[in-house]
Amino acid sequence: MANDIYERDLDRNPANYQPLSPLSLFERAARVHPDHPAVLYGGVSRTWGETHVRAVKLARALRASGVGEGDTVAVLAGNIPEMFEAHFGVPMAGAVLNTINTRLDAPVVAFILQHGEARVLFVDQVFGALAREALARMDGALPLVVDIVDPGGEGNVGVGDTNYEEFIERGGKIVLEPQPRDEWQAIGLGYTSGTTGNPKGVVTHHRGAFLGAVSNVLVWQMQRHPVYLWTLPMFHCNGWTFPWVLAAVAGTSVCLRNVNAPDIFAAISRHGVTHLCGAPIVMSTIANAPEALRGSVGHRVECMTAGAAPPAAVIQAIEEMGFGITHVYGLTETYGPATTCEEKPHWAGLPARERSELKARQGVRYPMLEGLMVANPDTLEPVPRDGKTIGEIFFRGNMVMSGYLKNPRATEEAFRGGWFHSGDLATWHPDDYVQIKDRSKDVIISGGENISSIEIENVLFRHPSIIDAAVVAMPHPKWGETPCAFVTVRDGESLGAADVIAWCRDNLAHFKCPTRVIFGAIAKTSTGKVQKYKLREQAVSSG
Amino acid sequence: MANDIYERDLDRNPANYQPLSPLSLFERAARVHPDHPAVLYGGVSRTWGETHVRAVKLARALRASGVGEGDTVAVLAGNIPEMFEAHFGVPMAGAVLNTINTRLDAPVVAFILQHGEARVLFVDQVFGALAREALARMDGALPLVVDIVDPGGEGNVGVGDTNYEEFIERGGKIVLEPQPRDEWQAIGLGYTSGTTGNPKGVVTHHRGAFLGAVSNVLVWQMQRHPVYLWTLPMFHCNGWTFPWVLAAVAGTSVCLRNVNAPDIFAAISRHGVTHLCGAPIVMSTIANAPEALRGSVGHRVECMTAGAAPPAAVIQAIEEMGFGITHVYGLTETYGPATTCEEKPHWAGLPARERSELKARQGVRYPMLEGLMVANPDTLEPVPRDGKTIGEIFFRGNMVMSGYLKNPRATEEAFRGGWFHSGDLATWHPDDYVQIKDRSKDVIISGGENISSIEIENVLFRHPSIIDAAVVAMPHPKWGETPCAFVTVRDGESLGAADVIAWCRDNLAHFKCPTRVIFGAIAKTSTGKVQKYKLREQAVSSG
Repeated sequence: MANDIYERDLDRNPANYQPLSPLSLFERAARVHPDHPAVLYGGVSRTWGETHVRAVKLARALRASGVGEGDTVAVLAGNIPEMFEAHFGVPMAGAVLNTINTRLDAPVVAFILQHGEARVLFVDQVFGALAREALARMDGALPLVVDIVDPGGEGNVGVGDTNYEEFIERGGKIVLEPQPRDEWQAIGLGYTSGTTGNPKGVVTHHRGAFLGAVSNVLVWQMQRHPVYLWTLPMFHCNGWTFPWVLAAVAGTSVCLRNVNAPDIFAAISRHGVTHLCGAPIVMSTIANAPEALRGSVGHRVECMTAGAAPPAAVIQAIEEMGFGITHVYGLTETYGPATTCEEKPHWAGLPARERSELKARQGVRYPMLEGLMVANPDTLEPVPRDGKTIGEIFFRGNMVMSGYLKNPRATEEAFRGGWFHSGDLATWHPDDYVQIKDRSKDVIISGGENISSIEIENVLFRHPSIIDAAVVAMPHPKWGETPCAFVTVRDGESLGAADVIAWCRDNLAHFKCPTRVIFGAIAKTSTGKVQKYKLREQAVSSG
Repeated sequence: MANDIYERDLDRNPANYQPLSPLSLFERAARVHPDHPAVLYGGVSRTWGETHVRAVKLARALRASGVGEGDTVAVLAGNIPEMFEAHFGVPMAGAVLNTINTRLDAPVVAFILQHGEARVLFVDQVFGALAREALARMDGALPLVVDIVDPGGEGNVGVGDTNYEEFIERGGKIVLEPQPRDEWQAIGLGYTSGTTGNPKGVVTHHRGAFLGAVSNVLVWQMQRHPVYLWTLPMFHCNGWTFPWVLAAVAGTSVCLRNVNAPDIFAAISRHGVTHLCGAPIVMSTIANAPEALRGSVGHRVECMTAGAAPPAAVIQAIEEMGFGITHVYGLTETYGPATTCEEKPHWAGLPARERSELKARQGVRYPMLEGLMVANPDTLEPVPRDGKTIGEIFFRGNMVMSGYLKNPRATEEAFRGGWFHSGDLATWHPDDYVQIKDRSKDVIISGGENISSIEIENVLFRHPSIIDAAVVAMPHPKWGETPCAFVTVRDGESLGAADVIAWCRDNLAHFKCPTRVIFGAIAKTSTGKVQKYKLREQAVSSG
């Protein structure tokens, strides 16, 4: 019989309970560090105090335009200050921020605007042509369109009814109610790239955004006042929550439109960048930059990467520059990274190859993700932690989305059995670290044997003349499927299909070896993920 | 009209919502860093994995003894491993941990056991005599008493029905349900020392304990694997949440029974201690240790202090050793520290005296405390941020207790107006930092003027021959009240009352100067707080 003395007269009230929200971190940064630079971009430099003033104006203008709780505000923009501000101003109005991938095509952008029911669309004029085409394809009510005019942008096209600077003056002194009312309130809407069918709208909330942001501070062991370079698109899972992370640690955002080696290294030196995130392609760009650039930085930069395991050569090259590299993993559905390959002190003493292999694993749960397991997708029975048995990765906890917008069927499927189904296949090591072997739909089933495309890719990556590689299934009359390899050869070197296959036979069980090799650049998404469905089409069409 | 697309089919479920709890941090430390040392004490050294096994045993034994949700488990112990384990094992059973101040007298301990309805009492045999007397004074049902036998303890007295090591074997393989069911569930019960009347039982919950612990990591910018020295009693606000902080960063707890300079410095050197917390008396002990000890440490130690502002001399001495010092402030009602004097980069360049003055302020809110203000206690109108106007400090947010156990009247009073009334009087500086001027009940009202006892104490502390000082109100036939100073003079030096008063007249408005000076040691609580009610009695009785 449970005692109830702790159930009496000890209820929540405004003094002892407030909804968790990154807005509280933002308000704190603005009050405690009002004069610290929050955002730098070209000639623009704004403090946390100034950014707060502008975010309040944005929120008031949205309210004055009839936008409030449960309304979607879309942004189609690069990594510019207005995009950063929107991460605070939009939720301060109670609205939901829908950042749209600028590399999508117009029909998909139109689909997103329509499905998300955007009331307002902020358009960076650099993407004005895309927005115009998308708007022309929409049925029904159009959003209010507001142009963001960046004098430094190239190929600006005006499309809006007004511009951002005029717009944010519209709200006057409207009083904003405290937001959110409830920590479960939606804060973000992000569409997954979706390799087939229409993209799904991932809904995230204030509680998760707050905990995700704080988790990143812990995982990356961030100190106060970092200088963060935006090499990761903010449209991608809200920049992995980093606008809010930077509020938590009163950091400085260095905005960057074009992610290329000269711009990256110039920003690092000029602003004393301490942290950056990016897909593997960003890490390769840094690792393979000309020696003159790589040698130009006199301080340590912490790099965080996700999307695919960083190849050993990249890890080594980055560490040899005196930079740090942290490998994390997650999905749009988990606010970006939700597992981390937390480095053990004793790894430092291991040979480079062994260390790189350990670091290439996806790792362990974030502190605010309460559950992570590799399990049988049908029974949800965890696989043994033997580093061999393959299962699906499952997430559970406060860093998992509320669900897919207007898609109860997909939501239900994703959460079947009380765990979020990632669709990624992995093994579970005895030390609790998970390691992705494949997307469930990317596994190659040859003669009844499961072949991990990633295992073959790892072998290909170790070949000294190969700088990029991907493997997909290709139909085979006898075996059902067989691996087809896509390979990019280092400039100035040459390699034939027979060489590649021989290399694989030397390093893999024979049934796992590719039977076809296709040379050239490999199709990737805007976030650097290999587009395996395109490769599968290529494999068939070139067969 | 609010849109409702975000209200449909996006509910909480076990995949996307889990109760916040420090138990999740503990489970993570044990899984990710099972071989890292969690606790060191004398010859005992246990890893996080081993500590987890023991905590599970403790939880099972409690369940097997009929203890469950809403039941109180009391511990009367020093900073020993069992006390550390109880912070995990007790909540894993769903129960509430009531750590009792070992320096209280038997009637108060009896009151606490009875009021908290403790079902089990763990007694460190060093405090066996106190427990025996307290138990003898109790009416009604007695708790199950379990002895903790520490072969290194002095003056052990057995009082229990069994001992800890036998007890934790009792649970066998009982299956533990996941805890907590709800993040609002109570995790801790801590009695405030209470200067008058019976102590009040502060109830804290899993959500707040989790957020408080994470806040401490952020505020102190802690890296993974710190080595933490227990110079702060764990019975004090659950050691300011540090058992849970250490789980979050997989740190090592170095237990310490006796807080004195030789033991502190021996532990620092032997274990490579990186962090410690303590009342001002601990900081003075470190700052005033013999040169041979102070010079024996070759690395930086981060010190966190609260309870009273650290005097300038102590800040300087500690920093000159190459140690860091962080000044925080809070109450049992706020899980210990909830504000921090966050150091601004530019303070480093200021003269020592000016820096110390800035650092002596109580500071700004913790990231997980959503509201902090200095306001008029009647109207709750914030005072101007002028660094002059005095008001009461108010807290609001997720680091505020659920309330006082079985005391709805006190709870209601404490939360009047939707803010927690701290009872501390302060000014609010233009840079958002608050500075305590006095406890509201410690203000001296002389001839209708409010005099801050802290202002006078600060002047006394600056006198080169004074090493400790406190000021209280004393009745005065003409002025109503007048300040009475208590002063401890440095060994080997001498000072008369006239000297002290003259010093004050040189440094203060005359109406603020003490009219009486009492020399000698100053009465303090076990946590180093000056017991002003005792001084007021002394001031009257010696008058």
